[in-house]
Amino acid sequence: MTDPHPLTPLLAPRSVAIFGASNDPTRISGRSLRYYREAGYQGALYPINPTRDTVQGLTAYPDLAAVPGPVEFAIIAVPANLATEAMQSCVAKGVKAVVMFTAGFAEIGPEGRAMQEHITAIAQQNGIRLCGPNCLGLFNMRTGHTPTFSSFLEEGPTAAGPLGMVTQSGAFGTHLLALAARRGIQVGVWLSTGNEADVAVADGISFLADDPDTTAIACYVEAIRDGAAFGAAVARARANGKPVIAMKVGGSTIGAAAAASHTASLAGSDAVYDAALRQLGVERAKTPEDLIEIAYACTRGRLPRSRRLAVVTMSGGAGVLMADAAEEEGLELTPLAEESQKEVLSWVPFAAPRNPVDVTAQALNDPTILDKGFDLLLGKENFPSMVGFFTTWASSPQMAEPLFRSVSAAAARYPDRYFALSAIASPQMQRRYEEAGVGLYEDPWRAVQSIAAAVRCAERLSSAPPPVPPVPQDMPPLPAGTLSEHEAKHILAAAGVPILAERLATNTAEAAAASSLGERLVLKIVSPEITHKTEVGGVMLDVPAAEAGAAYQRLVERVAARAPGAKIDGVLISPMVKGGVEMILGVQDDAVFGPVVMLGLGGIFVEVLRDVTFRIAPFGVEEAHRMIAELRGAAILRGARGQPPCDLDALALALSRLSLFAAAQRGRFTSIDINPLLVRATGEGVAALDALILTQAAAGEIHGGGATA
Amino acid sequence: MTDPHPLTPLLAPRSVAIFGASNDPTRISGRSLRYYREAGYQGALYPINPTRDTVQGLTAYPDLAAVPGPVEFAIIAVPANLATEAMQSCVAKGVKAVVMFTAGFAEIGPEGRAMQEHITAIAQQNGIRLCGPNCLGLFNMRTGHTPTFSSFLEEGPTAAGPLGMVTQSGAFGTHLLALAARRGIQVGVWLSTGNEADVAVADGISFLADDPDTTAIACYVEAIRDGAAFGAAVARARANGKPVIAMKVGGSTIGAAAAASHTASLAGSDAVYDAALRQLGVERAKTPEDLIEIAYACTRGRLPRSRRLAVVTMSGGAGVLMADAAEEEGLELTPLAEESQKEVLSWVPFAAPRNPVDVTAQALNDPTILDKGFDLLLGKENFPSMVGFFTTWASSPQMAEPLFRSVSAAAARYPDRYFALSAIASPQMQRRYEEAGVGLYEDPWRAVQSIAAAVRCAERLSSAPPPVPPVPQDMPPLPAGTLSEHEAKHILAAAGVPILAERLATNTAEAAAASSLGERLVLKIVSPEITHKTEVGGVMLDVPAAEAGAAYQRLVERVAARAPGAKIDGVLISPMVKGGVEMILGVQDDAVFGPVVMLGLGGIFVEVLRDVTFRIAPFGVEEAHRMIAELRGAAILRGARGQPPCDLDALALALSRLSLFAAAQRGRFTSIDINPLLVRATGEGVAALDALILTQAAAGEIHGGGATA
Repeated sequence: MTDPHPLTPLLAPRSVAIFGASNDPTRISGRSLRYYREAGYQGALYPINPTRDTVQGLTAYPDLAAVPGPVEFAIIAVPANLATEAMQSCVAKGVKAVVMFTAGFAEIGPEGRAMQEHITAIAQQNGIRLCGPNCLGLFNMRTGHTPTFSSFLEEGPTAAGPLGMVTQSGAFGTHLLALAARRGIQVGVWLSTGNEADVAVADGISFLADDPDTTAIACYVEAIRDGAAFGAAVARARANGKPVIAMKVGGSTIGAAAAASHTASLAGSDAVYDAALRQLGVERAKTPEDLIEIAYACTRGRLPRSRRLAVVTMSGGAGVLMADAAEEEGLELTPLAEESQKEVLSWVPFAAPRNPVDVTAQALNDPTILDKGFDLLLGKENFPSMVGFFTTWASSPQMAEPLFRSVSAAAARYPDRYFALSAIASPQMQRRYEEAGVGLYEDPWRAVQSIAAAVRCAERLSSAPPPVPPVPQDMPPLPAGTLSEHEAKHILAAAGVPILAERLATNTAEAAAASSLGERLVLKIVSPEITHKTEVGGVMLDVPAAEAGAAYQRLVERVAARAPGAKIDGVLISPMVKGGVEMILGVQDDAVFGPVVMLGLGGIFVEVLRDVTFRIAPFGVEEAHRMIAELRGAAILRGARGQPPCDLDALALALSRLSLFAAAQRGRFTSIDINPLLVRATGEGVAALDALILTQAAAGEIHGGGATA
Repeated sequence: MTDPHPLTPLLAPRSVAIFGASNDPTRISGRSLRYYREAGYQGALYPINPTRDTVQGLTAYPDLAAVPGPVEFAIIAVPANLATEAMQSCVAKGVKAVVMFTAGFAEIGPEGRAMQEHITAIAQQNGIRLCGPNCLGLFNMRTGHTPTFSSFLEEGPTAAGPLGMVTQSGAFGTHLLALAARRGIQVGVWLSTGNEADVAVADGISFLADDPDTTAIACYVEAIRDGAAFGAAVARARANGKPVIAMKVGGSTIGAAAAASHTASLAGSDAVYDAALRQLGVERAKTPEDLIEIAYACTRGRLPRSRRLAVVTMSGGAGVLMADAAEEEGLELTPLAEESQKEVLSWVPFAAPRNPVDVTAQALNDPTILDKGFDLLLGKENFPSMVGFFTTWASSPQMAEPLFRSVSAAAARYPDRYFALSAIASPQMQRRYEEAGVGLYEDPWRAVQSIAAAVRCAERLSSAPPPVPPVPQDMPPLPAGTLSEHEAKHILAAAGVPILAERLATNTAEAAAASSLGERLVLKIVSPEITHKTEVGGVMLDVPAAEAGAAYQRLVERVAARAPGAKIDGVLISPMVKGGVEMILGVQDDAVFGPVVMLGLGGIFVEVLRDVTFRIAPFGVEEAHRMIAELRGAAILRGARGQPPCDLDALALALSRLSLFAAAQRGRFTSIDINPLLVRATGEGVAALDALILTQAAAGEIHGGGATA
């Protein structure tokens, strides 16, 4: 990469000014400068302090203008009422990036929000990237750039390791940094984004995606403001071969309310977030422990090549447990070849030789069993990954060294394999294993779980993201105002979502003529004022074709009686179709991710089990197939209970086309519902039997809409 | 308790003989003796060693007979071929309990199994309780009784703490002991059971239930042999106010296979285990980490009194996360009263005052905010439990002491409250908090999760187990041989599972006479040789009453044509019932737990979603209601989709009656299926529409049976 990343002035500047730098290195206002000096920052450092000539031994300047050379970056920690002035002096000096610790902005209410917007506008108009306000800053240990007052660096600079971390919350970020350090993970770059007036988590991911020394990226997110920017940053990391692991909080009702009070952010629905993160190729961690353990598994210098896993154990119980964990996580404990099993038994007569391979305590007496076992599994059996359970052997006076020799030698003999151990070791021994490329886990279940997460990350990185068809540019814009079912369906049909043949009849004769559509017909009232047709008796099912004219008359009279005054545009007539599976498709315009397509199975699946799944629009058929497979009731579509398999390709195509339509019409609708979409047997396609599009203009007119027919 | 527990000779003997005790305290054969001496065992210790006069400074004896005083307990670690002889000398000496480390018995094959059975028979015939063989022994730190060679005691004796632990696997037990010790949990008594020739996990639980210094019991189980004994032991612990936490492995296909090779045990279905553990009141832990963390939460000297939880945090992000965790775990973050919220805001203007209460970093400047906050939450607001997030404050030079003072003082002011902290502290500081009655968790999610587990444990202990009606003693035994649907239903009806009125017609006239049963009828063929009636056209639905005679004739002819030679006993006629929800009830005779009742919703719920639940028979209606509520589709029964609510009381009663029937008939059947049981609207009851009972005698005759009609 020849062009530096646009965030280089923020994350790796050559010169730094610190507003209000204190001479006392233990005070919050003195900490950043102390950290810079301890970290060996090589750029220019300018403390700004109107009352002192020197600060912590460095020449101080009364104001930014007095600084002799150029200043690329500044820390602003002055009180909120002085922050505007500080920002203006940054503009005057040509500063390119600012970290603002100061609190008291959007998080405290409208007045603070106005002040924040004012400062952000100054920054943006003058090409200054602003991190914060109300953040704890960041560090980049690769250059010793430490504009933060996080207590994490109080005990000295940390190693410039392979993990990059981006956390919206600075306090919780500090907690995660401490947990990572205790786990032996070296975080080389950390960024906290606070109020995200300008720089957001996505910017941090984007910078780390380009940073050559970062191999994995961990994030803590409370709310994403710009889903597209987040998606682009993750795609950049993916293209550069770096897994992104994210914890997103605020999924619960109380949690979302607390998040709103905390970050003053819009918190989207957790189900949408969950699907979006999956679609973008992010490994979502549920808990801090998960985040840390997955980050650990992904920073061992290599990733597992496949789902095949060899398990070696000296405890049968641990073998059972790891087999349970592997099955739950979708890893494959392929049994060893007969011949290999015999070989194991020739060393240890009472071994369990299949996989898990239980070498029993026999290896205590003869550690060469381990060497032979590792060669058998990684050499002859060619497993890409191996996990060993050796409990307290790693810390026992007798076995610690023999075990380390055997394991580290095997890791060196097979440098392309993924090697993990479940064992209890001293911190020193733990480091020695890690330096040998072997990850250590106290809990064998956690070991398997973390390997599985690393496998998922590797799979994402080794496969291209599924193709997304281009969004049509020539689509006629959705008309404003209310759309009838008839209009909605024809618009969707033109966009590629099939519908049945149908005719709009406006009199008895036209209805009678529609009898050619099929032997049995469905008649539905068409009125812009009636969204819930069944409630006014506006639907007739299974009408014999010969009675179409009479049924038309009855239907119109019935609706006129039950919904007097409603303008009736006619009656929609279509063939009655039986069989197939009814699905519900929908689109909402999500505040974070834009149009989001929902899919669910009709009936109890949606109504009782809430079995629905989401995707950000647009997407292609491959992603649509994944979406379908995520439904708990997907077996229904594959032909459960003696029914023929459904036309999944047609369903996937309709989903993709709907997503392209939604992306093209973004901003012109608030919701689209297709309920039901009938999915017929393989080869017979799908058909939208009813549809409702609420356009932007119409959205205000109809309340509580959504469900149709 | 005046009578000592029957396992006292095993777990707290007054005199101990050690076969083959080595003078070298580092060798496996020398370890037990060394551990006894280090633990300060006060009873008599007799090393048995034919080649030495003294062993590790104690007088040695050439054989057991030579020991001068009585010997209550012996360790046998001699090779398998000498074990019988050692056991016989124990019989001669009047030993009451033996721990046998020796491997090479049932776990290696039929020959070893025979040897194990022989030794077990000697023990049982002579009133000796046998722990092992193939086990790592046990320790009881309350008396310094340490018959084990587990490496766990290599670093010296451990504290006689409140946790009791029983692990089938000794090696994995040692791993759990090490994890517990690293977590700061003191395990006072540990028992590994190995091959469980006699003493099983249930025995260990039973002893610990009576041990006055044990407050919680953690188990690791690969397979339970005797479900009833396990249930009785858990009930004993429950009656004595002690939670039982269990990890049961072998749930996966590979895991179960590995478990079988490991322990030579019968592994029941994991779904049955899961339901049984829940029914017995066991807190099931999924992973070793879970087991350890729940044990930690349950050994803090008190348990939470209710689900109400106060969350205090200095990081908004952590507050959001803990709120998410609380919602997922079913804890209630009741919002503070308006007045209390105002009080919080008077201390910290930008606090989030609802719950979570975010006191922000402001408490750094003014630690009295913490004191006031704790008083507000535990005093005025009277929360029974509180969790605080204080991250690295607990280890920061500035805040560590003020935070500890404030928290420990609050814990002392409110000694009946449950107090947990999510914070990162040094091991020393961690111990100080624990001594003050405050549990520490690095991960705030884990803190909430563990509190929730402790809440569940407390709820079980404070509520009486649901009543179980007595099993009827006067029930006529099931007849041997094959039962027809008609017979099966009448037997079940007599046992209290309602059926519809029905008549067996053996000719056209009888069929015609059955028209009085209802307007529309169902006709089903009755033949002992036909279990799948629909496959041979043996069922007619919705037959008008007037056509009953003719329908009889058609049905009999059709079946005769499709199943020529099948003996036809007649046609069962019953009213056609519409509406209601169809359930599937079944009973299997489980190898571990005896008769186990299954319940599922008919149709896709069972066939696609495998939505079934189990209970050990017998049980009462309260337990049956819990069973119903566990179904994912339970909303269907409560009246989803515009249907009337179903008669849940009648369903619960039928389930309980079925369980009593199954318990009474134990051993006389292999399976019972009621498919479907129709559950009608509230007040209208339930009816078994079809039933199949495979008696013990009949089980061999019909293959692949199970589904009926």
